[in-house]
Amino acid sequence: MPTTLDVVAILVAAGSGQRMGGVEKAFLPIGGIPLLCYSLSVVQASPLVQAAVVVVQGSSVKRAHSLVEERGFSKVAAVCPGGATRRDSVWAGLEAAPPSTWVLVHDAARPCLTEELIQRGLTAASGTGAAVAAIPVEDTIKEVGPGGAVQSTLDRSRLYTVQTPQVFAREVLRRAHQESPPGPSWDDAALLEALGWPVCVYPGDRRNVKVTVPEDLELVEALLSRRKGS
Amino acid sequence: MPTTLDVVAILVAAGSGQRMGGVEKAFLPIGGIPLLCYSLSVVQASPLVQAAVVVVQGSSVKRAHSLVEERGFSKVAAVCPGGATRRDSVWAGLEAAPPSTWVLVHDAARPCLTEELIQRGLTAASGTGAAVAAIPVEDTIKEVGPGGAVQSTLDRSRLYTVQTPQVFAREVLRRAHQESPPGPSWDDAALLEALGWPVCVYPGDRRNVKVTVPEDLELVEALLSRRKGS
Repeated sequence: MPTTLDVVAILVAAGSGQRMGGVEKAFLPIGGIPLLCYSLSVVQASPLVQAAVVVVQGSSVKRAHSLVEERGFSKVAAVCPGGATRRDSVWAGLEAAPPSTWVLVHDAARPCLTEELIQRGLTAASGTGAAVAAIPVEDTIKEVGPGGAVQSTLDRSRLYTVQTPQVFAREVLRRAHQESPPGPSWDDAALLEALGWPVCVYPGDRRNVKVTVPEDLELVEALLSRRKGS
Repeated sequence: MPTTLDVVAILVAAGSGQRMGGVEKAFLPIGGIPLLCYSLSVVQASPLVQAAVVVVQGSSVKRAHSLVEERGFSKVAAVCPGGATRRDSVWAGLEAAPPSTWVLVHDAARPCLTEELIQRGLTAASGTGAAVAAIPVEDTIKEVGPGGAVQSTLDRSRLYTVQTPQVFAREVLRRAHQESPPGPSWDDAALLEALGWPVCVYPGDRRNVKVTVPEDLELVEALLSRRKGS
């Protein structure tokens, strides 16, 4: 019987990089190092995480495998192909992961992951079984209609921008994936929310930026080069 | 009779910096240079802007004046004290500004302003008389209740994060300030929206970051040091 680990990290990197001009983000070099390696390094070094699963596009499984071996990411228990949506990819990662009590889902497109974020996530999730990194919305948010016409300004006082890591009691996340109506979802927590399962937020980090469009690369490169320097 | 200029920039820097630990952001040194100077330099260099007004806290008018003189920001027509809310401060700037057809309102807390943003704003505003820089919301947004409990996930497909510059036909902004019910507002555009005046969005820049909390400083310092280097 396999041992049940405490925490397995699922690193999701199966996006098509459409808004990045069709470049697969996982392997985008930042300071000469593939994007995926940054969060993987933090997971590898974390005393709180025992194993990791990396989810990439089907055509890139071999490439990701080589990367993991070359760089000595010994915690990676599996590299598996993702699905058509982020939800499918997380599910694939759940299926491929070794047994654990907790799962920590993280988008590899957020390379500025830190040990503090992992710690805070696990602490917060121990309460309700589900916790997501989030920061208060500081900017004004507007709803925009056709042709760029502003339709309304939202009351932002209770709005939070959600990041990853998102940490879940594994069985809860598994059930949410199985019981939620099919279709894409905004994030994993939304699946739980739809079923009425309590989800709480914990303090994210504004530097935990997501690489979505090319101009984000400059931001992330700047942040990571400073971190290396310090 | 005074000449009517095309474009006057109102640089708003009158915030108390509460979330910055009570430090007045305008004078926060970034790479040894006060925050305010960054956007002021872009305005000074812009061939599209003829004059600028700087709005700071009442107690800092003299200090800002000295800064403007020392650094040779010759386009600054006035340094004036702000009010209790951002709305009051913009109004103070409008009252102090030399006559113009257009006003460009910019938060000095966004030091990564560029000439391209100014250009795009003026072009967009020439259509409806009011245009705000904005970027599509890429992150999931959740509404959070007491104790950090997630209450719902928003459909983000039509949501935009609004930045500055916000560009207005001056008379339109003036009327919106006068005719809107008193009280704070999310931004200047919201005053126009409340009166039914059409406002459009134009492409902002994800690097046009706002300094709100101390960790933003690292982000902005990293961006500005790269810009200097390039």
